[in-house]
Amino acid sequence: MIVGMSRWEPNARGRLERAALELYLDRGFEQTTVAEIAGRAGVTERTFFRHFTDKREVLFSGASDLQGLLVAAVTDAPAGATPLEAVTAALDAAAAMFEERREGSRRRQAVINANPELQERELSKLAGLASAMAEALRRRGVADLPASLVAEAAVAVFKIAFEHWIDPAARKDFSQLIRDSFDELRTVTSGR
Amino acid sequence: MIVGMSRWEPNARGRLERAALELYLDRGFEQTTVAEIAGRAGVTERTFFRHFTDKREVLFSGASDLQGLLVAAVTDAPAGATPLEAVTAALDAAAAMFEERREGSRRRQAVINANPELQERELSKLAGLASAMAEALRRRGVADLPASLVAEAAVAVFKIAFEHWIDPAARKDFSQLIRDSFDELRTVTSGR
Repeated sequence: MIVGMSRWEPNARGRLERAALELYLDRGFEQTTVAEIAGRAGVTERTFFRHFTDKREVLFSGASDLQGLLVAAVTDAPAGATPLEAVTAALDAAAAMFEERREGSRRRQAVINANPELQERELSKLAGLASAMAEALRRRGVADLPASLVAEAAVAVFKIAFEHWIDPAARKDFSQLIRDSFDELRTVTSGR
Repeated sequence: MIVGMSRWEPNARGRLERAALELYLDRGFEQTTVAEIAGRAGVTERTFFRHFTDKREVLFSGASDLQGLLVAAVTDAPAGATPLEAVTAALDAAAAMFEERREGSRRRQAVINANPELQERELSKLAGLASAMAEALRRRGVADLPASLVAEAAVAVFKIAFEHWIDPAARKDFSQLIRDSFDELRTVTSGR
């Protein structure tokens, strides 16, 4: 609705996210205030808090989309798929979502890696992804222990493949790095 | 030294840890102040801050001991041990350390599970354990990717086995739950 749009400041959310990332990169996360982020985005502080609970959350607004995508892929995997096949399909879908965003992902990660509070929030989001995938596996009839383990393993693979992918020296694409990591995980857990 | 002991309040650290856990269980983590913890332990707030940086850290003072134990076990594993064997030895050593503390571990975990800030701090400590084990594996000559993956997998196994172990319905001991989880991880990552 046009009226709704003017009232709710269309794309304020996206502007706030970009403004926050730029300020965090320029001045550091700790030195940046919500007032400055709102100012750069051309909105009020109140608008900021309508979209985000705090200065950290603005960097993690993609987490719920990612979680939805992973859960949908696990849920929609073919009936005969093993738990490993279901989470592999989920990470493939995530990789496709990220593939075009290497530079933005790299910049965002540089901010997170510079701040322990942000690292804690990131770990919390990753733990949420693991819980959500485990739950989706249980709804497919996978028992509790294998559901938890394969979901945690998938998140470990995702995290490690992501770290390699944003390395400026990386030449492989994200989905290839995910496949390599799953292969390596299979090798190491077989005990060799 | 006797002089040093009176000055530095022998066992103030242990008293603060017990006082904090009791208060967190009775009143909740958020409602408890550092002044109350110090008061119950019979020390000043200044003494609290000589031992712990904040109210969260007092619940995690065992993390550096645990990390030291895991790293030592990885480092001291026989020269021919595979990465999986090295981290399995590390978790066995950790299980032996925890085995007698089920009730205390359960009480502490109840406090953590009730508070998102504490959950984030716990995830941060677990990530630290994974990094430290990965680093110890690299010093044994394990390549970067398998070192990271087996260390992350070991922490996932530890976390999941721990959750089962503190469940009042659990009948197995911690080391058995760790072995079961490693076996299950091997099964799920083989794709079956």
